[in-house]
Amino acid sequence: MKEQDQNLTNIKWHSLTIDRDKLEKMRGHKSIVIWFTGLSGSGKSTLANALNEVLHLDGLSTYVLDGDNIRHGLCKDLGFSDKDREENIRRIGEVANLFMNAGIITITAFVSPFISDRNKVRKIVGSEDFIEVYCAADIKVCEKRDTKGLYKKARLGQIKDFTGISSPYEAPQNPEIVVDTGSLDLKASVEKVISYLNKKNLLQNDSR
Amino acid sequence: MKEQDQNLTNIKWHSLTIDRDKLEKMRGHKSIVIWFTGLSGSGKSTLANALNEVLHLDGLSTYVLDGDNIRHGLCKDLGFSDKDREENIRRIGEVANLFMNAGIITITAFVSPFISDRNKVRKIVGSEDFIEVYCAADIKVCEKRDTKGLYKKARLGQIKDFTGISSPYEAPQNPEIVVDTGSLDLKASVEKVISYLNKKNLLQNDSR
Repeated sequence: MKEQDQNLTNIKWHSLTIDRDKLEKMRGHKSIVIWFTGLSGSGKSTLANALNEVLHLDGLSTYVLDGDNIRHGLCKDLGFSDKDREENIRRIGEVANLFMNAGIITITAFVSPFISDRNKVRKIVGSEDFIEVYCAADIKVCEKRDTKGLYKKARLGQIKDFTGISSPYEAPQNPEIVVDTGSLDLKASVEKVISYLNKKNLLQNDSR
Repeated sequence: MKEQDQNLTNIKWHSLTIDRDKLEKMRGHKSIVIWFTGLSGSGKSTLANALNEVLHLDGLSTYVLDGDNIRHGLCKDLGFSDKDREENIRRIGEVANLFMNAGIITITAFVSPFISDRNKVRKIVGSEDFIEVYCAADIKVCEKRDTKGLYKKARLGQIKDFTGISSPYEAPQNPEIVVDTGSLDLKASVEKVISYLNKKNLLQNDSR
């Protein structure tokens, strides 16, 4: 095909609002926010990215928000004070909401240690579209893994207010999904999440 | 088809990173940021939404960021001081960059009056993917339209630092596209933008 043939020449026009409903129809599935929470080293990011891969390969439109694309960009002006942590999660909640409104299954992976902050996000997104997934690995397991060497630094006092050591982690009281990422392997963890989403008919893909 | 048949049961797994390149392939087209700038009343939002509709109806994956979904959400903590305006545009630039990385043609409509702020966004997004569209309606036309009654309030001193009246608008020096939204009608304005995007082969949609 010649390049010219791919040009948009037939401009269609109906003064429609391209809203979430239309974008979900286009993508062939519903959009939701899947919010992973848990201690550092509990496997949130690994699980989020594995879930993302599985859903993407199945033809669903997904995106992951995590430290890699948020901390050095949108939230690079924020530190780790209580106020800044709260603002960090608020902004991520707002961005997750925008992505959901764009018809995308939005997956986030942040420690997000405080119940009040997570509940604020639930309110922004809307409770019916917010799937809270608690990565419930025991702190002993997380500290033993110490994937990023952060627990060691926290124990040495080199990191202040480190969740689980010198700052509290408030476990979800009524999360949609609990995954024991301390004992389950990655595949079983993904299956547990997908099993829930299937049960709730949240992964119906009309284009499949 | 029964609901059960639509469930995701065949979990595929390859430890892939689902990056921008893969998401662009999935959507069948490149992702870019189309950044509209201009005075209040210059027609940025109208043009952005019309362009969005045309591209959406052509099967492209698009999303609009504008005052409607940003000011009362992500940036609701910000006012209109120089510092807050700068932070407002920075955050929007970061979010636009995230959407682009999700494979989406991202359309933004904000006054964004300062060259330095727009150039910062150009740097965040990457110059090759950043299409600056100057909505160049004369201020007399914008003030005459006064769609939101803001010029009247600004003239009465009820709004401080209003762009074009009591705060400068720095026109782009070298924008990718200039649209004279003061004299062109909406259809001609959309055509001008699409003509540029076609010429640069930025709208090739493999799924068309």
